[in-house]
Amino acid sequence: MSRDVKKVVLAYSGGLDTSVILKWLQTTYKCEVVTFTADLGQGEELEPARKKAELLGIKPENIFIEDVREEFVRDYVYPMFRANAVYEGQYLLGTSIARPLIAKKQIEIARKVGADAVSHGATGKGNDQVRFELGYYALEPEITVIAPWREWDLTSRTRLLEFAEAHQIPIAKDKRGEAPFSVDANLLHSSSEGKVLEDPADEAPEYVYQRTISPEDAPDVATTITIGFEKGDAVAINGEALSPATLLAKLNDLGRENGIGRLDLVENRFVGMKSRGVYETPGGTILLAAHRGIESITLDRGAAHLKDELMPRYAELIYNGFWFAPEREMLQAAIDHSQHYVTGEVTVKLYKGNVTVTGRKSPYSLYNQELVTFEEGAVAYDHRDAAGFIKLNALRLRTTAARARKAQ
Amino acid sequence: MSRDVKKVVLAYSGGLDTSVILKWLQTTYKCEVVTFTADLGQGEELEPARKKAELLGIKPENIFIEDVREEFVRDYVYPMFRANAVYEGQYLLGTSIARPLIAKKQIEIARKVGADAVSHGATGKGNDQVRFELGYYALEPEITVIAPWREWDLTSRTRLLEFAEAHQIPIAKDKRGEAPFSVDANLLHSSSEGKVLEDPADEAPEYVYQRTISPEDAPDVATTITIGFEKGDAVAINGEALSPATLLAKLNDLGRENGIGRLDLVENRFVGMKSRGVYETPGGTILLAAHRGIESITLDRGAAHLKDELMPRYAELIYNGFWFAPEREMLQAAIDHSQHYVTGEVTVKLYKGNVTVTGRKSPYSLYNQELVTFEEGAVAYDHRDAAGFIKLNALRLRTTAARARKAQ
Amino acid sequence: MSRDVKKVVLAYSGGLDTSVILKWLQTTYKCEVVTFTADLGQGEELEPARKKAELLGIKPENIFIEDVREEFVRDYVYPMFRANAVYEGQYLLGTSIARPLIAKKQIEIARKVGADAVSHGATGKGNDQVRFELGYYALEPEITVIAPWREWDLTSRTRLLEFAEAHQIPIAKDKRGEAPFSVDANLLHSSSEGKVLEDPADEAPEYVYQRTISPEDAPDVATTITIGFEKGDAVAINGEALSPATLLAKLNDLGRENGIGRLDLVENRFVGMKSRGVYETPGGTILLAAHRGIESITLDRGAAHLKDELMPRYAELIYNGFWFAPEREMLQAAIDHSQHYVTGEVTVKLYKGNVTVTGRKSPYSLYNQELVTFEEGAVAYDHRDAAGFIKLNALRLRTTAARARKAQ
Amino acid sequence: MSRDVKKVVLAYSGGLDTSVILKWLQTTYKCEVVTFTADLGQGEELEPARKKAELLGIKPENIFIEDVREEFVRDYVYPMFRANAVYEGQYLLGTSIARPLIAKKQIEIARKVGADAVSHGATGKGNDQVRFELGYYALEPEITVIAPWREWDLTSRTRLLEFAEAHQIPIAKDKRGEAPFSVDANLLHSSSEGKVLEDPADEAPEYVYQRTISPEDAPDVATTITIGFEKGDAVAINGEALSPATLLAKLNDLGRENGIGRLDLVENRFVGMKSRGVYETPGGTILLAAHRGIESITLDRGAAHLKDELMPRYAELIYNGFWFAPEREMLQAAIDHSQHYVTGEVTVKLYKGNVTVTGRKSPYSLYNQELVTFEEGAVAYDHRDAAGFIKLNALRLRTTAARARKAQ
Repeated sequence: MSRDVKKVVLAYSGGLDTSVILKWLQTTYKCEVVTFTADLGQGEELEPARKKAELLGIKPENIFIEDVREEFVRDYVYPMFRANAVYEGQYLLGTSIARPLIAKKQIEIARKVGADAVSHGATGKGNDQVRFELGYYALEPEITVIAPWREWDLTSRTRLLEFAEAHQIPIAKDKRGEAPFSVDANLLHSSSEGKVLEDPADEAPEYVYQRTISPEDAPDVATTITIGFEKGDAVAINGEALSPATLLAKLNDLGRENGIGRLDLVENRFVGMKSRGVYETPGGTILLAAHRGIESITLDRGAAHLKDELMPRYAELIYNGFWFAPEREMLQAAIDHSQHYVTGEVTVKLYKGNVTVTGRKSPYSLYNQELVTFEEGAVAYDHRDAAGFIKLNALRLRTTAARARKAQ
Repeated sequence: MSRDVKKVVLAYSGGLDTSVILKWLQTTYKCEVVTFTADLGQGEELEPARKKAELLGIKPENIFIEDVREEFVRDYVYPMFRANAVYEGQYLLGTSIARPLIAKKQIEIARKVGADAVSHGATGKGNDQVRFELGYYALEPEITVIAPWREWDLTSRTRLLEFAEAHQIPIAKDKRGEAPFSVDANLLHSSSEGKVLEDPADEAPEYVYQRTISPEDAPDVATTITIGFEKGDAVAINGEALSPATLLAKLNDLGRENGIGRLDLVENRFVGMKSRGVYETPGGTILLAAHRGIESITLDRGAAHLKDELMPRYAELIYNGFWFAPEREMLQAAIDHSQHYVTGEVTVKLYKGNVTVTGRKSPYSLYNQELVTFEEGAVAYDHRDAAGFIKLNALRLRTTAARARKAQ
Repeated sequence: MSRDVKKVVLAYSGGLDTSVILKWLQTTYKCEVVTFTADLGQGEELEPARKKAELLGIKPENIFIEDVREEFVRDYVYPMFRANAVYEGQYLLGTSIARPLIAKKQIEIARKVGADAVSHGATGKGNDQVRFELGYYALEPEITVIAPWREWDLTSRTRLLEFAEAHQIPIAKDKRGEAPFSVDANLLHSSSEGKVLEDPADEAPEYVYQRTISPEDAPDVATTITIGFEKGDAVAINGEALSPATLLAKLNDLGRENGIGRLDLVENRFVGMKSRGVYETPGGTILLAAHRGIESITLDRGAAHLKDELMPRYAELIYNGFWFAPEREMLQAAIDHSQHYVTGEVTVKLYKGNVTVTGRKSPYSLYNQELVTFEEGAVAYDHRDAAGFIKLNALRLRTTAARARKAQ
Repeated sequence: MSRDVKKVVLAYSGGLDTSVILKWLQTTYKCEVVTFTADLGQGEELEPARKKAELLGIKPENIFIEDVREEFVRDYVYPMFRANAVYEGQYLLGTSIARPLIAKKQIEIARKVGADAVSHGATGKGNDQVRFELGYYALEPEITVIAPWREWDLTSRTRLLEFAEAHQIPIAKDKRGEAPFSVDANLLHSSSEGKVLEDPADEAPEYVYQRTISPEDAPDVATTITIGFEKGDAVAINGEALSPATLLAKLNDLGRENGIGRLDLVENRFVGMKSRGVYETPGGTILLAAHRGIESITLDRGAAHLKDELMPRYAELIYNGFWFAPEREMLQAAIDHSQHYVTGEVTVKLYKGNVTVTGRKSPYSLYNQELVTFEEGAVAYDHRDAAGFIKLNALRLRTTAARARKAQ
């Protein structure tokens, strides 16, 4: 267990847990600790993390703080939304998609500072440890990975607090007691799990939700917006061009106000057990609906159905932490190929938890009003063709039916 | 075209169009016409259809009227909902799933009365012609199929009305003008398409919706219900055991009142073009959410993910009319096998268009609170196992990464 | 049927059937006929086709003859072999893959000469009509397609010969009687079907085979060769760099001599019936084995398994004629992405019908001898990791088993 | 590690390695050891295993020896062959499919004798440990599993022999040195791996093969046999009804003599590395070809293609040890459903490594000679239908093409 480590890059939030980890790494591995704190849009100031790291004895040149919001949305969230990725029919993968980016950043810093190890604060029963570590290994196969929660003996809240006190780690008042649930947040979503949520028969209490108001509290009048897409990615709201992160933030505001994007779910973790989580993905929920809307008029049926069939696998790969795996990249290549003409505008109505696509238009629309009218079009469609189409599609069924009869 | 036909079983609604077809069959094929009118829960009286058929000269013994609501829900809707089937990510297949049953009934009647042909009123550009006819052929391979809309010359509304008048077919006042859209309805859903809906950029007008009130008009207070499941099928609401059709009707009422189940969609037809439809599936929308809810605690991950991967194909088969195809039956066998323990209760909150699962419990739950708590359980889970799990999952990624580096 | 056509580009082989078609087009449509004759490696001289076209009154500037062998192998055969495509577990798609190229060339010529129609000699019961026509339409949506075999009344051999005589079309002596089977050939394969092959219970007579000697007649001593690959494509034999078509021709020679690549198959046609064919794909059979061989050491497991799962769909698309469909291109993008490191050498032993991979090596091999030895490696693999790996993989199965027990 | 164990059921072959394990279990865990030795058709006497177990101090009532050949073929091999299961395009899963049966038997014995643990002799780098243990856990979730190769310190051949000598375990002369490769065998196949096979660039030496003669040494005259099938399972050879195990044994003889079923493969292990194995599956290779043969005339296209698409996943599940997982059972339900009419006879020619299907017939054949002849059949097929079929299949491609043009 006590491997020889010289310098470790820690994914550091500035909170109590990762501060304990920081200290534990120093005392256990006698190694230099480098901290990495990312602004993923979780809605927290980063400078306090710097201060706290300094306080815990980290050298200034070993403190890395970066705003990665644009990179996060552009290179992770958007490619994933091109796939309409949804895990187990419902979860928009808000936590899963952030982990590979953090892992990548840690590895980049490790290379820069010559670190031989990386560390994270994910627990030993969750998916995040897998996502972090598969990311590390896929990018830097010989890196040493330290997962304190699987190694140390601070196995109760009490012992963790004792360790913190023993090492002069400041403990915020509200961290003294046990949190009623634990939270992960970034620009795409907030997730809550544990404690008060652990019985899946019980409704999640309203105070768990932090990113959205409830549908009941949302305005009584609908908000209607238009989202512009280019090659599968959202680029504008109501005609105003926005960068990926700015656009998603704007959708989050709209979603929050209209009570959109709440999900109470029992899901299957990669590590083998079921868990119950509450997710809030306000902007992402709007984005998914709008993306399906623009695809509905710009994507060929063959492409659309292939995407739908590949999607569950793609979502599972992201959920399980295989973002950097060859098969995820293969699927991405197929998905991206389909998005060439996914350009246009979608009108979306937001009302008390509902996202309704009410209109879509595109210079590349495949919707052909002439084809679809009940009157027979001049050109492409001859009613009589349908007879032949059905006849040949039925041929094998007829042969099979004749066999069944004969066999009786 | 003018094949020799002695007796034809027509899917007869009693409406103007199928009345014209009835007469057209008599005059064109000089054949005996047998009518079949089914109560699929479309919300119309059937006796007027009998009267009208008699008026058009159909012999009483050639008029078949049947209430098939229970069979419809039990043998078609429920098996489909076991699969969580959704076409193109959104459509609950309300029209698609009714066609095979009608086709089956027509064939059964054809056998009983010794008919050599069947006929339907679906147009030449839609999916329904395919669904009807694949059903006919799969059950009775040598049957003759007559699709008047593909054969006759009544290619405009005017000519159709002229034909009706010429043959003393009563024309309801509101059928004189052209309908602003066309409708299909059964116990699972109502669909509307055509005319006022043809530009997908324009919002569907409120008057198109007939099966649900709008979320805006729905009550300001949520309704919470409990749905009981046995082996994947809904069997009770709020503890009261209900037959399949009664249960679905009850869910429809609940959905309607709470503005649930509206969908405005551009979809890809099997015959090759895109079309825009407005669907209302109030009870089905609740049922899908609740079924996913009970599966979330009773279905093993492997089974759940396999189901999710197979679902798009399964939904496509139903949409395209392949209900009676061997591959649909194979998928059904797989799906049904998974539902053995999908038993329990789901609590669902209905509020202004939203269906929210707030609780689930089952005597066969796979959710194990002990496993999931942050504290390490006594039994099955050792944090250290996760290290090995990750290491072996990472092994191939590390090998691949080492290769990439070497290749640079 | 008698559409207005000014100029038609005919896929013209120079044989009797397409000569009759040529004349029939002239007489039926009163249109200018442009002939396209391709050298796809079918092993026939092309100049006789030119002569015959001239004889039938085609203007020299309307006669197009092109050697497309390199394009065929490079842009069609090779991409398909990157996928290890096999239809229904066995058929290497030799006919299917040639049709899109011919269609593309016809369309290109149609554009060049300002033709408004294209025509082919495929019959009305086969797959080739579909493959040609889907190709035409996908490239030139408004083109008129003439399929003489579906339109004319030359429905027996006798009438066809009468037509030929009436129009002074030379009839080779051996074409007077009915051929005992029909043949399609190109650089990838020869196929034979019909007549003597029609009873699938009867062994195909030896004289049907034209492209390979029988295993029994092949040399008693094995031939061993080395095939070099770069990014998934074969580029060299025994160290000698060869162009795609030259390489495939060389493999064909090697295959032919060693009795390799025969297949006697009952397959499912896209148009709905089963048919029996005899295929000879000597070089392709070697290529498939070798490509799997080089992939076995250079492809990551995740990529390899995804390819295997996508393959049947990909093969079906090609078989059904959807080469130019968006979903085939999406799958190709995924497949091509996987081939970046599929580079190296494979040793293959050819002996009396057998192709055996006996060795593979690559600068990008993922095979790691150190990992695989029974002794525990210094680096990546710790036996104890396997325990955790198994434990977490088993977790859901254990939970399921505990449930089953409890349920009893 | 030193868990408290009272009684352990060991999968015992009677060989040196499992004898060492037997002793090691006794000395390490101070527990009662129960041995289970199965006749899976590996071709070894079982009575010596009984003697050896007695010699090592196992009580007679703790020695279980069972001939499971019929159960093995009937309940494991045959269901798998219904799926045409092939791992990574080539491997017939001979080792993988035997492990679940052994695991099941051990658990049954554990229940009978009241054992609280099971143990096996698979190493820590292979797939077999996973297959055994997933089987154990899926059947008996609370069982203790002892995997000596992952626990003990006998990490070299020398130490293992020392342990054997120290405990009076007889060592056969030929076991003194290191084996040049390791072997697993059962009625379905023999596999060889390790040492002399470890460089995948080198051809496997002839002496590795033990189950088949080489194609070169096989008779110069082909052997032709007929295999009868019922509902997907082989039931007769040359008209003689045979039990599953007897039939497979007979096919093994035929395969062996004709040099059939050799495979030299680099495969991807579930535990993450590539390994090279030499497999001999003489009878299975014939069986697979014959099964595909009978399916080719009795299986509907939709069913056949669905099977082909599901197969890679199914094979992967078996390879990875998930025989008892819900998703394998779901797939099996789908596959079994398809086999209802897979009944008939296939003629197969065996010649120097080649297995060639030369004829197939069935009372339930879907092959319809009338449909397939070039002349238009009286009944089901109208050439003109093909035009409509193609037109509607092309419609979306034409729309897409028109868009692409417009976009330029």
